[in-house]
Amino acid sequence: MVKTDIEIAQEQTLTPIVDIAEKAGFLDDEIEQYGKYKAKISLDAFDRLADKEDGKLILVTAINPTPAGEGKSTVTIGLGDALNKEGYNTMIALREPSLGPVMGVKGGAAGGGFAQVLPMEDINLHFTGDIHAITTANNAIAALLDNHIHQGNALNIDPRRIIWKRVVDLNDRQLRHITDGLGGPINGVPREDGFDITVASEIMAVFCLAVSIDDLKERLSRIVVAYTYDRKPVTVGDLQIEGAITVLLKDAIKPNLVQTIEKNPALIHGGPFANIAHGCNSVLATKLALKSADYVVTEAGFGADLGGEKFLDITSRELPKHPDVVVIVATIRALKMHGGVPKSELTSENVEALVKGFENLKKHIDNMSSYGLPVVVAINEFITDTQAEIDALTELLNEINIPVALTSVWADGGAGGIELANKVVEAASKESDFTYLYDLDLPIKEKIEVIAKNIYGADSVNFDKKALNQIKEFEKNGWDKLPVCMAKTQNSLSDDPTLIGAPTGFDITIRELIPKLGAGFIVALTGAIMTMPGLPKVPAAMNMDVDSKGNISGLF
Amino acid sequence: MVKTDIEIAQEQTLTPIVDIAEKAGFLDDEIEQYGKYKAKISLDAFDRLADKEDGKLILVTAINPTPAGEGKSTVTIGLGDALNKEGYNTMIALREPSLGPVMGVKGGAAGGGFAQVLPMEDINLHFTGDIHAITTANNAIAALLDNHIHQGNALNIDPRRIIWKRVVDLNDRQLRHITDGLGGPINGVPREDGFDITVASEIMAVFCLAVSIDDLKERLSRIVVAYTYDRKPVTVGDLQIEGAITVLLKDAIKPNLVQTIEKNPALIHGGPFANIAHGCNSVLATKLALKSADYVVTEAGFGADLGGEKFLDITSRELPKHPDVVVIVATIRALKMHGGVPKSELTSENVEALVKGFENLKKHIDNMSSYGLPVVVAINEFITDTQAEIDALTELLNEINIPVALTSVWADGGAGGIELANKVVEAASKESDFTYLYDLDLPIKEKIEVIAKNIYGADSVNFDKKALNQIKEFEKNGWDKLPVCMAKTQNSLSDDPTLIGAPTGFDITIRELIPKLGAGFIVALTGAIMTMPGLPKVPAAMNMDVDSKGNISGLF
Repeated sequence: MVKTDIEIAQEQTLTPIVDIAEKAGFLDDEIEQYGKYKAKISLDAFDRLADKEDGKLILVTAINPTPAGEGKSTVTIGLGDALNKEGYNTMIALREPSLGPVMGVKGGAAGGGFAQVLPMEDINLHFTGDIHAITTANNAIAALLDNHIHQGNALNIDPRRIIWKRVVDLNDRQLRHITDGLGGPINGVPREDGFDITVASEIMAVFCLAVSIDDLKERLSRIVVAYTYDRKPVTVGDLQIEGAITVLLKDAIKPNLVQTIEKNPALIHGGPFANIAHGCNSVLATKLALKSADYVVTEAGFGADLGGEKFLDITSRELPKHPDVVVIVATIRALKMHGGVPKSELTSENVEALVKGFENLKKHIDNMSSYGLPVVVAINEFITDTQAEIDALTELLNEINIPVALTSVWADGGAGGIELANKVVEAASKESDFTYLYDLDLPIKEKIEVIAKNIYGADSVNFDKKALNQIKEFEKNGWDKLPVCMAKTQNSLSDDPTLIGAPTGFDITIRELIPKLGAGFIVALTGAIMTMPGLPKVPAAMNMDVDSKGNISGLF
Repeated sequence: MVKTDIEIAQEQTLTPIVDIAEKAGFLDDEIEQYGKYKAKISLDAFDRLADKEDGKLILVTAINPTPAGEGKSTVTIGLGDALNKEGYNTMIALREPSLGPVMGVKGGAAGGGFAQVLPMEDINLHFTGDIHAITTANNAIAALLDNHIHQGNALNIDPRRIIWKRVVDLNDRQLRHITDGLGGPINGVPREDGFDITVASEIMAVFCLAVSIDDLKERLSRIVVAYTYDRKPVTVGDLQIEGAITVLLKDAIKPNLVQTIEKNPALIHGGPFANIAHGCNSVLATKLALKSADYVVTEAGFGADLGGEKFLDITSRELPKHPDVVVIVATIRALKMHGGVPKSELTSENVEALVKGFENLKKHIDNMSSYGLPVVVAINEFITDTQAEIDALTELLNEINIPVALTSVWADGGAGGIELANKVVEAASKESDFTYLYDLDLPIKEKIEVIAKNIYGADSVNFDKKALNQIKEFEKNGWDKLPVCMAKTQNSLSDDPTLIGAPTGFDITIRELIPKLGAGFIVALTGAIMTMPGLPKVPAAMNMDVDSKGNISGLF
C-alpha cells in the first residue's frame, strides 16, 4: 500500500533548524527559532551578505494544470534536493500554504512523497503565523476605515465605493456577499460588503513584493481602499495608519527557513493567489536565497501563462536578477487530457492524444523562450506512464532542441531528479538574453493586448465599457505605468476553462480592472474570478484528528 | 518627564528565554523557542513533574474598576518579582492581551512601569499566535457549519437558530450585526449573523479550561452551535469536526514562557473576556506554574465580584487546588471615586470620600473571606496619594484585621512590593478552610440567586420570561449541573454601572442564558453585554509606527 505524504513525513527524523541554518551560512544572531524545526531569518542577514554575488535563479513553472495535477511543488523540492546531491549549494524558495484549501480539499504546497518540506503539518497549518499577521493587518485596515466613517467621515468616503474587503484564511462562501453595519447608529454604517480569502488580499501581494520594512510601509500607504463622494481615491496613507499596519507585519516579513526530507534548506515565505495576484513567494525570500546559495529553485503558481508570465513581468522587476533558466513541469497524464482524453481513461496508453496535447506544452515553451530564457522540460513520472508515451514525448522535445528529463522525485527524492538537475545546471550556464514582454510605458490596453496575443495566443482583446472607463480614470490618476496582473482561468491558455490544448481563433474579454497600488500592479479581470473559495460536501477537515500526544492524522 | 511603558521596556536587556526556562527548571527538550525571548513549554513537562507537590497559589483580584484604573496586572507582576527578590521561588501566570484593545484604546495586560513582562511589544501583538489559532478554530467551525447547511443540511439545522458567531481579534463594530450568505444559491444560505471579538469566543474559554489535548477535544465536541428545526441542540461533535478543530489548537495549547523586567519567569497563556467568560489565564499555565514553583501569582479579570468569584467557583474546580490567599488591589483614587468624587477632583486629598468608598473594598474583602480564604489588601500607590489618606485606609483595614501593604511596583519593580510579598507569604502559610459558594447540584435559579445575594449584595433576582423558558429547556437537556458564569457590568457590584460603593436595596435582572457546554458553564446575562467593542474617534493605531530596523513606537 502506498504511503500518504503525512505518513512519509512523520517517519522522518528532522535535523534541528539551527543546524540547517548554519549549513546554509546564517549566523546565530540571524536565526529566530519557532519551535525546533522552523526559524525566521533576520533581515540583518542582507547587510552582511550585501557584497556577495547572487546565485543562479531557476524558475519552475508548468503547463496548464488539470485536475490530474502536475506536481510542480514536488518537482521544485526534488530538483533542489537533486542539485544539493550533485554538490551544488542550493536553496529552495516556495510559497506558504493557505489554511483554506488545507481544511477544504487538499494539503498545501509542501510537496509530496519523498520530495517534501518539513515539518509538513506545521507548514500546512499555522506555520510561523505570517498569514495570520496578514489577515489581521488586512482586517485592521477595514475596521479603521469603517470607524473613520462612523466617527464623522472627515475624508468624505463614499460607503458605496469601498473596495477594501475583510478576509479570513478559510474557504467560507457564506461570507462572499454580506451586509454589515446593521442594528442602528451605534453599530456602524450599513453597507454592502464581503470577505475574500487571505491569500487574495492585496496585503499578501504587498508583503511578497516589499524589499524592506520601509518599502513595506510605503507600499501599504499607497493602497487604495475606497473613493470619496467626488470619486477621489482614498489610501491607507490618507487614514494615517500605515505605521500601525506595518507594526503588525514587522516580524512576519522575515523569511522562514525549514528543511526538505533530505535535510536541505528551504525558505517558505508568502503565498499570494496566482489569479488576483502574482502567485510567487516573497521577493525577500528569493533575494535571501540568491545571496545564500549558488542555485536557487523557486516556483510560480498555476501554469506558465499565469504564474510564469507574472514572475517574469512583475516579480522579476523587484529582484536583483531575472531567472537563468525556466523549468516547465509536465505529466503524461495531463498532456493526454490536453489531447482530449477524459479523466476516466487516463490510465490507458494513448500516444496519439499525448502528441495532440503536446501543443499545450509547446506553446508554454515558446512563451518562456520568447523572454530570451533557456527552457528545460521536467516530465513528472506517474506509475501509469508507458515507455511508448515517454519516448514519444522525449522525441517531440528533441525535435525542437529542448532538454528534457524524466523525474521520479515523488518516489525517490533527490535521486529521482539527478538528470533534471544536470540539464538545468547546463542550461543555466548559458548566457541568457532576457527581455520583458512589455515596456511599462505602454498604455494599459496595449500591455494587456501584448499578454493576450503573445502569451495566450488570442486574436484580439475586447474591453467592456466598464473597463474602458476605468482605463481612462487610471490614466487620469497616473496609474497607467504599472505592470498588468492578469486574472484568468488557470485551466486554459484562453479565458474559457474548457478550451484545452493550445487554442487559437479566440478573443479575450476584459471586464474590469482593479488598482493594486500597494502591490504596484493593475489587475485585469477576464471573467468571474473566485477570491473566496467554498468547501466541498465532505471537507478534508472531517478526516483530521490529533492524538493525546499531539500527533496529527488525516492531513494530506 | 515620566517614561512610557514601552520606553522603559525597550531600555531593558533581555535574557535569552532558554536561560529563563532553565532557571524555572524546564528541560531543553521541553522548550520550544518562538524567537529569542519567547518559548512554549511542551505538555510533556507535566509527566516529568507529576509527582512534584504543588506550590502555593496567590490569586490577585481587585475592587470594582474605575476609569482611573487599579493596576492589577502591574501589582501581580511586581508581587512576583518581590517574592523572587525575597528568595521565594515564584512563577507568575497571566492572560495574553487581545489585539482589539491594543489597536483601539490601550495596551494589553503586560503590566506597567518597572513591573512589566517582556518583550512587551510581542506580547501585545501576535505573541506566539495563540489567539490567531483560536480565531481560526472558531471561524473554521462557522465555515463548516454553514457549509453543512449549504450542502444539504443532513442534520436539519435551523439557520435562524445558529448561536455560533464568527470572530476577529479586533474592535470592529461594523461586524456586530450582519447578514451573510447573500448573492444567490452558490453563495450559501442567507441569514442574520454577527461577529464577536476572539477573546469572547467559547473556544477561548474552552482553551483556558482544558487540562489536556484529549480534554480539549472532548470539550470542543460538546460545544452547542445551533438548534435543529425541532429545537434539538447541534454540537461540534455532531458536525464530526472536533478532530480538525483540535488540530488547529494543538500547539497553541502549550503555555508560553516570558520574563519580567527583573528576569523572573512568567507564563502568559489564554485570555478570555471576564464578562461573557471566566476571565483567567489557562488552567494548563496555572497547573504548570504550580508544579514549577513554590509560589504562583495569578490574576482574575475585572473586580472580585466577577473574575474573583469565577476563579473560585469555575476555574478552581479544574485546578488541583484552590488559592491559598487572595490579594485585593485597591487604589486611593478609585476608592475616592467609589466615595462619590468626580474624576476631575481625584488629585485632591479627600479622606471623607475615601472612607465612604472603602465600603466597596470592604464588600470584596467580606466576599473573598466568605470562601474561607485569607485576604491581603495591596494599595497600589499613586503620586497623588496623601499620607492622611494612606493612614486612614490602613486604619480601616487594621480595624477589621486585614493585612495591608502599600506597594510601589510601577516605580520600583519588585523592591516596591517587599512588604506585600511578606504579608502574602504569611497569610498563605495559614490553613485555609475553602468552600465553594454554591453546590453544582443546586437548580440554576438558586445558583444565580446565591451569587447575586451573597456576592453582589442584591435583595433578589428577577428572571425575564426568556430566561425562565431557557432554564426549563436547560434542565430538560441536562445542562443544569454546571456552574454559572455571570455576565455583568464590571463597574459596580450591582448590574447598574452607575451604582458605586457597596450598593444595597437593588435587584438583579437575568435577561437570557447562554449554554457554553464546551467551557462547561452557563452564562447568565444581566444586561446588554458587549462582545464586540468599537474603536474610539482617534484609535491608538494612529500613533503607532515602526522604523527601518523594526523598532516599534506608540504602543502603550
